[in-house]
Amino acid sequence: MNRWNGAGRRIHMQEVGTRDGLQAESVFVPTADKIGLVNSLSRAGMAKIEVTAFVSPKAIPALADAQQVMLGIERVPGVIYSSLVPNVRGAERAIESRTDELNLVMSASETHNLANLRMTQAQSFQGLCEVAALARQAALAVNISLSCSFGCPMEGEVPEDTVLAWCARFIDEAGAGGITLCDTTGMAYPSQVAALTARFRAAWPDTELSLHFHNTRGMGLANVLAGIDAGADRFDASLGGIGGCPYAPGASGNVCTEEVVHALQLMGYDTGVDLGRLLDASSRLPALIGHETPSQIVKAGRRLDLHRPPRDLEAIRERAEARAV
Amino acid sequence: MNRWNGAGRRIHMQEVGTRDGLQAESVFVPTADKIGLVNSLSRAGMAKIEVTAFVSPKAIPALADAQQVMLGIERVPGVIYSSLVPNVRGAERAIESRTDELNLVMSASETHNLANLRMTQAQSFQGLCEVAALARQAALAVNISLSCSFGCPMEGEVPEDTVLAWCARFIDEAGAGGITLCDTTGMAYPSQVAALTARFRAAWPDTELSLHFHNTRGMGLANVLAGIDAGADRFDASLGGIGGCPYAPGASGNVCTEEVVHALQLMGYDTGVDLGRLLDASSRLPALIGHETPSQIVKAGRRLDLHRPPRDLEAIRERAEARAV
Repeated sequence: MNRWNGAGRRIHMQEVGTRDGLQAESVFVPTADKIGLVNSLSRAGMAKIEVTAFVSPKAIPALADAQQVMLGIERVPGVIYSSLVPNVRGAERAIESRTDELNLVMSASETHNLANLRMTQAQSFQGLCEVAALARQAALAVNISLSCSFGCPMEGEVPEDTVLAWCARFIDEAGAGGITLCDTTGMAYPSQVAALTARFRAAWPDTELSLHFHNTRGMGLANVLAGIDAGADRFDASLGGIGGCPYAPGASGNVCTEEVVHALQLMGYDTGVDLGRLLDASSRLPALIGHETPSQIVKAGRRLDLHRPPRDLEAIRERAEARAV
Repeated sequence: MNRWNGAGRRIHMQEVGTRDGLQAESVFVPTADKIGLVNSLSRAGMAKIEVTAFVSPKAIPALADAQQVMLGIERVPGVIYSSLVPNVRGAERAIESRTDELNLVMSASETHNLANLRMTQAQSFQGLCEVAALARQAALAVNISLSCSFGCPMEGEVPEDTVLAWCARFIDEAGAGGITLCDTTGMAYPSQVAALTARFRAAWPDTELSLHFHNTRGMGLANVLAGIDAGADRFDASLGGIGGCPYAPGASGNVCTEEVVHALQLMGYDTGVDLGRLLDASSRLPALIGHETPSQIVKAGRRLDLHRPPRDLEAIRERAEARAV
């Protein structure tokens, strides 16, 4: 036993591959395949699935079938089916499509907010409040995702106080029940994650906190472990590690769901996920998106997926022992 | 401050790309380029460099120029120039070539030892003792690397007690001054690493302990951090993350030197390494080996290598603010 041992602690895995992953792909994955993918993830035991985004089909054609997907999936009891919505119009479509939870987004960096969302932060926040009010009327859960919580690829460092000030407004003014601190472009590092997570947890012990990491600079899993150590128990991840990053062509995307689950299970955490089912789903991804994924576990297998010894092992031993005489 | 913060603690980075990395490549990197690579790594501040292996050129043609490389490199004071030697003949060649330290290898798994080294463990151990005696005569340091210390791809689990019993024999009978626990095929996981490292450190506080991880299943950096937490301060890594694994085609190789250094520096550890020089060297690797490396940092840049905001950022802001009226 040591402090790296999970000792059965529950960690909630939240799949974002069907949204954050597929929206970065150039191909349109057929609606039936998207539904099949979400159903596989439900049956594998994910705690939450960000199924799609109710955005303009012109802006993100890959997710133009949001409504059909959301209405077409099986609803496994206990799984939260979330979707990203950018505005009131999207929220209305999401609510009509029986979304369990709305995920709203703005950035901790004004430059990134303008560049990505074409709005000032003040405008984004006002929009979030409107959508949150609508969700409250419809008795839907609201989560707010704060992009660039660990740094902005254009501005650089984003102070902890800035991040926490936005979190306070999300909770106090917008009435968010959950907040996701997003490492949008893979700038987070473990000591930073532990520090920010601890401050969040101390300030809001009862708010659902999720951490969203990208493996852009190889620190994804280490950041997850630092987050757990500081009190987080909900993590976004994407099947196969798809997702990419517009600022780092060729680099990995979101942390890979099966890699995180594989590691956490070995360490004794309870993810509630059936890794075999997850790997089955992940192995079908390349056919859907037209290329291999960054998943190491799909290539290497699980830790104890053993290999056969050489057929002539006994002959090798005999020759070796004969040499020694 | 939190326990993920390095607080200036010294971590010794040991480069193995020129041996573990290049031996896995199908191309022969010209001798002058190998020498240039080692010199770049010396100047970047690596604590130790496993320059090459004095093995049969028939077994590993990629390292057939071991002697020329070892004799051709610059010797930067303070850097340890190590080489892998499989037997007395190799050790003699290594000593003639002015190697600082001999690195000897056997496996914690009998099956892996037979399959890889074509000897029983008992034979390997006897050979190590002979080489170690020769090194002692020549006043050279001896390190022993124990393959499969965290699991065998054919046998499965390797008990901690088995690993520690070999370590005891390396120290007591062979007189090794250093031991490397090798995660040969990427089976190590953080809680296991912390537990084994802590037991080693408790048993032999004065023996130089190195940890050697592969990123085969995405746990490389997390394993490094777990090792540090349990008292390790020396880590093998390979430039660009080259190295691969014969049991997992397409999976990552050794943990990537620049990824580990980048993460540790952000966390406040003192690696003594100039990351800029390391990245320069890594960016020249693809031309030498004929393909891209798994390095994420080469693709994504350092955390604070910033990107320009959109040229029309002010126009975006003006349009956004006009909409709000």
